[in-house]
Amino acid sequence: MRPSGRQTDEMRRISIETNVNRHAEGSCLIRVGDTHVLCTASVDERVPPFLKNSGLGWVTAEYGMLPRATNSRMRREAKEGLTGRTQEIQRLIGRSLRAGVDRVALGERQIVIDCDVIQADGGTRCAAITGGWVALRLAVNRLMKSGLVRSDPLAAPVSAVSCGIYAGQAVLDLDYPEDSEAGVDGNFVMTGDRLIEVQMSAEGSTFARDQMTVLLDLANKGAVELAAAQMAAVA
Amino acid sequence: MRPSGRQTDEMRRISIETNVNRHAEGSCLIRVGDTHVLCTASVDERVPPFLKNSGLGWVTAEYGMLPRATNSRMRREAKEGLTGRTQEIQRLIGRSLRAGVDRVALGERQIVIDCDVIQADGGTRCAAITGGWVALRLAVNRLMKSGLVRSDPLAAPVSAVSCGIYAGQAVLDLDYPEDSEAGVDGNFVMTGDRLIEVQMSAEGSTFARDQMTVLLDLANKGAVELAAAQMAAVA
Amino acid sequence: MRPSGRQTDEMRRISIETNVNRHAEGSCLIRVGDTHVLCTASVDERVPPFLKNSGLGWVTAEYGMLPRATNSRMRREAKEGLTGRTQEIQRLIGRSLRAGVDRVALGERQIVIDCDVIQADGGTRCAAITGGWVALRLAVNRLMKSGLVRSDPLAAPVSAVSCGIYAGQAVLDLDYPEDSEAGVDGNFVMTGDRLIEVQMSAEGSTFARDQMTVLLDLANKGAVELAAAQMAAVA
Amino acid sequence: MRPSGRQTDEMRRISIETNVNRHAEGSCLIRVGDTHVLCTASVDERVPPFLKNSGLGWVTAEYGMLPRATNSRMRREAKEGLTGRTQEIQRLIGRSLRAGVDRVALGERQIVIDCDVIQADGGTRCAAITGGWVALRLAVNRLMKSGLVRSDPLAAPVSAVSCGIYAGQAVLDLDYPEDSEAGVDGNFVMTGDRLIEVQMSAEGSTFARDQMTVLLDLANKGAVELAAAQMAAVA
Amino acid sequence: MRPSGRQTDEMRRISIETNVNRHAEGSCLIRVGDTHVLCTASVDERVPPFLKNSGLGWVTAEYGMLPRATNSRMRREAKEGLTGRTQEIQRLIGRSLRAGVDRVALGERQIVIDCDVIQADGGTRCAAITGGWVALRLAVNRLMKSGLVRSDPLAAPVSAVSCGIYAGQAVLDLDYPEDSEAGVDGNFVMTGDRLIEVQMSAEGSTFARDQMTVLLDLANKGAVELAAAQMAAVA
Amino acid sequence: MRPSGRQTDEMRRISIETNVNRHAEGSCLIRVGDTHVLCTASVDERVPPFLKNSGLGWVTAEYGMLPRATNSRMRREAKEGLTGRTQEIQRLIGRSLRAGVDRVALGERQIVIDCDVIQADGGTRCAAITGGWVALRLAVNRLMKSGLVRSDPLAAPVSAVSCGIYAGQAVLDLDYPEDSEAGVDGNFVMTGDRLIEVQMSAEGSTFARDQMTVLLDLANKGAVELAAAQMAAVA
Repeated sequence: MRPSGRQTDEMRRISIETNVNRHAEGSCLIRVGDTHVLCTASVDERVPPFLKNSGLGWVTAEYGMLPRATNSRMRREAKEGLTGRTQEIQRLIGRSLRAGVDRVALGERQIVIDCDVIQADGGTRCAAITGGWVALRLAVNRLMKSGLVRSDPLAAPVSAVSCGIYAGQAVLDLDYPEDSEAGVDGNFVMTGDRLIEVQMSAEGSTFARDQMTVLLDLANKGAVELAAAQMAAVA
Repeated sequence: MRPSGRQTDEMRRISIETNVNRHAEGSCLIRVGDTHVLCTASVDERVPPFLKNSGLGWVTAEYGMLPRATNSRMRREAKEGLTGRTQEIQRLIGRSLRAGVDRVALGERQIVIDCDVIQADGGTRCAAITGGWVALRLAVNRLMKSGLVRSDPLAAPVSAVSCGIYAGQAVLDLDYPEDSEAGVDGNFVMTGDRLIEVQMSAEGSTFARDQMTVLLDLANKGAVELAAAQMAAVA
Repeated sequence: MRPSGRQTDEMRRISIETNVNRHAEGSCLIRVGDTHVLCTASVDERVPPFLKNSGLGWVTAEYGMLPRATNSRMRREAKEGLTGRTQEIQRLIGRSLRAGVDRVALGERQIVIDCDVIQADGGTRCAAITGGWVALRLAVNRLMKSGLVRSDPLAAPVSAVSCGIYAGQAVLDLDYPEDSEAGVDGNFVMTGDRLIEVQMSAEGSTFARDQMTVLLDLANKGAVELAAAQMAAVA
Repeated sequence: MRPSGRQTDEMRRISIETNVNRHAEGSCLIRVGDTHVLCTASVDERVPPFLKNSGLGWVTAEYGMLPRATNSRMRREAKEGLTGRTQEIQRLIGRSLRAGVDRVALGERQIVIDCDVIQADGGTRCAAITGGWVALRLAVNRLMKSGLVRSDPLAAPVSAVSCGIYAGQAVLDLDYPEDSEAGVDGNFVMTGDRLIEVQMSAEGSTFARDQMTVLLDLANKGAVELAAAQMAAVA
Repeated sequence: MRPSGRQTDEMRRISIETNVNRHAEGSCLIRVGDTHVLCTASVDERVPPFLKNSGLGWVTAEYGMLPRATNSRMRREAKEGLTGRTQEIQRLIGRSLRAGVDRVALGERQIVIDCDVIQADGGTRCAAITGGWVALRLAVNRLMKSGLVRSDPLAAPVSAVSCGIYAGQAVLDLDYPEDSEAGVDGNFVMTGDRLIEVQMSAEGSTFARDQMTVLLDLANKGAVELAAAQMAAVA
Repeated sequence: MRPSGRQTDEMRRISIETNVNRHAEGSCLIRVGDTHVLCTASVDERVPPFLKNSGLGWVTAEYGMLPRATNSRMRREAKEGLTGRTQEIQRLIGRSLRAGVDRVALGERQIVIDCDVIQADGGTRCAAITGGWVALRLAVNRLMKSGLVRSDPLAAPVSAVSCGIYAGQAVLDLDYPEDSEAGVDGNFVMTGDRLIEVQMSAEGSTFARDQMTVLLDLANKGAVELAAAQMAAVA
């Protein structure tokens, strides 16, 4: 029934290749099916002005998409300025990753996560969060190895997955053909069995509470698989 | 326990004054406690290019905040450009209102909802959606009276309310002092007993699924009260 | 003869409601007929860089118009950037109000006057100056009550009114239908019987010196009425 | 008494060199003392959209200042965007020149007047209007010679001059040292003995009506001299 | 002598992986040592306005660098706007590739080459031209296979390489440590044994004509190797 | 054969008028045929941040073109932002002039060269470099006279000229009609018999190495004439 032939609760193939950038303190190329996102973590010993002398660290994110990541070429954002969609996504990524960070343990420094979509097939923001956590983990490992950070500011992996109602069925991990047709869909950011962010919306439609429950169950299943892939990648 | 002395499931006082703008096809000033938003609906017989000759209508929204709507003066957006927060909010308002519109019945025309926050005390985006629907309803009434629209494109009111965990307790309709302290909060857009959009997030924290259930129950109670106020206003 | 049926030397109904904003140090909603402007005064203990350590205070103004303040909806300035017209108006408001301020007595602090047009029917810049002075007066009163300012930096009210030649007749306080037809019009900023700023221009036409004299006489009459309304509002 | 040693009613030396640009349909370099402005008139057979098929012509102006036209170098506007001051000035120039044009006689075409300040010593907007009219006159002469325009759309020259109260004395044609000290000053745009625009303002001060009368008398004297120089230049 | 241990006339290892993007009509990832550039070619059946109905095709290029492509993170261009350096580079790439295209044979369509630097170590604009041609070649192959283009608009490969005087020695294919130290360097765009563009400059220094000759000889050697790699990649 | 009737190796008439701006520390109006560029040098005792406390001076350049410098009016850059072409040119001018400056001898100060094209007929960037050096020389002379600079930071003049293949013939100093037709052209920045920058490009075509040699010979001849004019102007 799904265009890809997947089961309703089947995720796309996940691959996470680490250390793909020789300059960044942490990096990975995450592939969730045909969605490919390059994630780098850059450590900056200076924090933003509002945190000066607070003793607290900061994690923030930026997101971009190459013009031909999509089926038809999009205009280059460097020419046009950041769209509202891009700003909304990078705020989500930053908020999600910060929820999994002990900012006291991180110490007064900033880590910038850059998530650049090399190829898109739906679910780019979820892949960015999942891969962004891997880059962050690797950068933090390096800070700990160098002694700059003593106690580990990270706990369980933070990952994200989308679910939605496609052709009347609740499905896990929407690809682009499903995403563009789904009447209801949501993004679920999780760590362990706890939630960090839930965004559900109905495109030109509405949904009942029990539909939400079904999607949350699917998301939970996806989060377990993503966390396993993340842990394997950083092992 | 709440700074305002309200019960955990008690909303702020709601008032909706209609026809406050002599030019707009529909308008209201919605007050949810000390949050005051001026909403106007402007009918435009032209649709955006992507809808030309589609026979479908469009509803979109713009959101702004006067510089001194807040406790300390903010910089004027007209000088600085739209922030990411503003863009995220106006996309939410537009999406929410469109979910309650039969775009075939509306016909090939556009209604622009402007939501300008005159005074802010938390929950401005929720007030904007709730008041925006009232302005939209009034503008559609005028289109129907004039015969331009035959069958009513609107059904039950669309409204929105925030809920969150404040000082360990689930509370309905956060005001600014609560909102700035809440570890978990969410915005719930509803129509009747169905959901249009759910956005829950944990600021530097996480939440369990059963907390979500409690907040949804509170939101449901709020939605009933808001819908009553909306119906009274447009009667 | 006038579209509104007013006498040539008759102003529109003036109403000034004060303390309409719970956050601002001074505020009012001024209504001159169907022109409604919300004015707030925000005290900032820091001055702009060019006044650091000068001992002198500063008063500046910003002006905006809600998109549907006008008969047909205008594009939102936050999206497009400030127009030249807006910048010209806010420079005028700031200059006019500063002319009535003893900057030594005010002390090294800044007061920002925000004038936001809620509904427009001609003469918005004049209403903004008149209402802006009221907001300024209220904010200064508060500074004096708190002891931060000892000697009163304000004297007589500063107000503004437009006059023009409409249908061959000199008329006071142009509304929009008159303003869009007038071949010659002017804005007159006054304090007591003295002038602060005179801007007269002929749209595609010219005028003689004695026409200017007639308009100045009308403006003088208007200024007396406006000052009375301002004094009553702040009493 | 004046820094330059001039009489109170004495203008600076005026020189207008025409046809200084080989490409433009009309051009001049106007020098009013040490204020030098290069003015070109460019004929465009297309009008702005709002005049399509109206049969009416249009005259508009743009104004700029080279970064080192002033005593200390200013930032280049092409890098920073147009300032409010620049926009205010170019609106004034356009309005002033249009007041002296019969737009029916001009026919449906546009003339763009570019006024670029090569060197500044006060009064640049006045010099721009005065020189801009000369460039316009030359461009219109060419249109008439070619038969594109039959009846002359221009009448008497449009010129502008500033006057002000400097060191307690009313003086004509302020140079920069006077302009930066004057408590009251004004710009007067005239054609023959009629006025097109009057802008008087008091920097941090006020003025009485009879001071205005004195300045108008001085402006009148200046306009006569400027018109003579303009007529000689285009002869 | 060279930081990398290479001979003076030795290029870095070149690898060109093709068809790395499932959406683009042509694509490759070119690696010249540690400089990695992702190149895509997007066919657009519409040409820019200035070529409408000319029968001529167009090739243009856009260039970007991911924020952490460099040793220390750069600001994201989408936030800041295109720098002058970026614009200069993308004009160079477009010009260079167009020189190798028969625009009549291409027919009235546009091919946009996007060159995004994934990792930088000097010579990014040269790698972008070399890889850009490969993407272009692949896209043109597809157009020919589909019958949209009949006669081949491309001839010999277009490639580019940098040379410079490093530590007193003429060297081929500068990497970043060499590039940042070189007193004289140049970029040479070639096709076969003919030149398309030569840009030589002396950073704070000068050079003699015979130094230019030596660098041209080196560039020629590099061009032969690059062309071989390009032909192998598209075979 | 040339549209102007010049010999292939004949430059246009050069005139350099110095001290044309009363404010600037150095200035000239350079005319190369019908290309007229106003150049000013502004001394600023502060250096850019990256040179603070380095003891090194800096020379930078900005370039602009008046809207009607060209045959048909261009849009004003202050309205549209700097084009890529403008940025490329001003980077070239700055780099070229810095190559001829001993930055230690100049001392920790900045000189900004503004080059504004008053009238264009091809070769504006070359005229800007040539005239820019004259303005720089005059400003440095003044610094030396005042004792602020002790040892002369400038040596031989820096000048620039374009050459190209027009109608099959190598020609010196292209004017606009030649420039717009030339298949191959180049800009050559020289000081004495040494080169500072060479930029050769083939518009939609290619060139052989021996063509480059011929153009370099022509450029050398031009540089001798330009240096003589520069030395005469500053004598």
